[in-house]
Amino acid sequence: MSSMESEKGTVVAPPAAENGNNKKCGGVDVILRVLLLAASIAAVVVMVTSNQTETVPTPRGPMRAPAKFHHSPAFIYFVVALSITGVYSIITSIASLSSMRKSKVPAKLFWILLLHDVLILGIVASATGAAGGVGYIGLKGNTHVRWMKICNLYGKFCRHIGASILVSLFAAVVLVLLVVLDGYSLYRRIPAS
Amino acid sequence: MSSMESEKGTVVAPPAAENGNNKKCGGVDVILRVLLLAASIAAVVVMVTSNQTETVPTPRGPMRAPAKFHHSPAFIYFVVALSITGVYSIITSIASLSSMRKSKVPAKLFWILLLHDVLILGIVASATGAAGGVGYIGLKGNTHVRWMKICNLYGKFCRHIGASILVSLFAAVVLVLLVVLDGYSLYRRIPAS
Repeated sequence: MSSMESEKGTVVAPPAAENGNNKKCGGVDVILRVLLLAASIAAVVVMVTSNQTETVPTPRGPMRAPAKFHHSPAFIYFVVALSITGVYSIITSIASLSSMRKSKVPAKLFWILLLHDVLILGIVASATGAAGGVGYIGLKGNTHVRWMKICNLYGKFCRHIGASILVSLFAAVVLVLLVVLDGYSLYRRIPAS
Repeated sequence: MSSMESEKGTVVAPPAAENGNNKKCGGVDVILRVLLLAASIAAVVVMVTSNQTETVPTPRGPMRAPAKFHHSPAFIYFVVALSITGVYSIITSIASLSSMRKSKVPAKLFWILLLHDVLILGIVASATGAAGGVGYIGLKGNTHVRWMKICNLYGKFCRHIGASILVSLFAAVVLVLLVVLDGYSLYRRIPAS
């Protein structure tokens, strides 16, 4: 053990208290990552099960027409983004869990997690925005460009899309908290700060 | 100076080299924040100057119809989000610049910047996604729900929207880099990591 490590252990925080804090932060980290996994799975499942077929009026008379999520590129991007997030949350949950078993979690782990969490946050936030923007047109329409609302016809489809976007918004908030926690885990290891 | 600070100065990095690194990181931080400001201003200006009026066919015959960004809630959200980002980048550029004058930048500054940068990233990424999702419908239309594309009629409007979204995407990338830099500034201050 170097003099620096010894200094850190005795001056900044007693080793027992430091380990306790590490475990607490690690526990919160794992809980947030499991929540992220649950939110990702829920958002994807609710989105892909949104299919609904209804009889709609067309210029050639009433027709049976389906509404499916993959009719919109924004919703496809949403499903891909949240699927990536789900896989990512599994990998990082395992990494976070296995690091908790160690007596001292290396700071590099928090740094690497921060790097990746912030990228995934960008992807999830943009996917939520894209799906939200398109979903809002489906709900309200846009009279200026004569894009008709469809939620009066496809009620179940829209409820699924709306719920999926809300869950994805929750996933984005969890990712913000994870980045903040990664940053805090680094910050509190700096002596005399 | 406490024994801890003395230990940090001598064991981890010589004070001169540490100060040099601080200045380098601080310089990159200020450059990124100025880039963020420029991108925010450009995105907002290009979006709000996208107005275009054209003669379009309607059921009641050809009519002069304008296309304006505030006809879409997604574009309004985009302008508000990028305006907030512009103001935020001014404030944090000043904070970052003034901290560079100090001989030792407090770690708390990076921690506070990280907290706020990640929130602004979430806002900018979602705004880019929302505008991108709606802009794509304007460009390609959606035959499934009979939303007609408008970019064949409103060329200038669509070029402005597209350019604005690209600049906003650049702003989101700059924010990712800023969060990474904040994290790195914290990480490299941890002794023996």
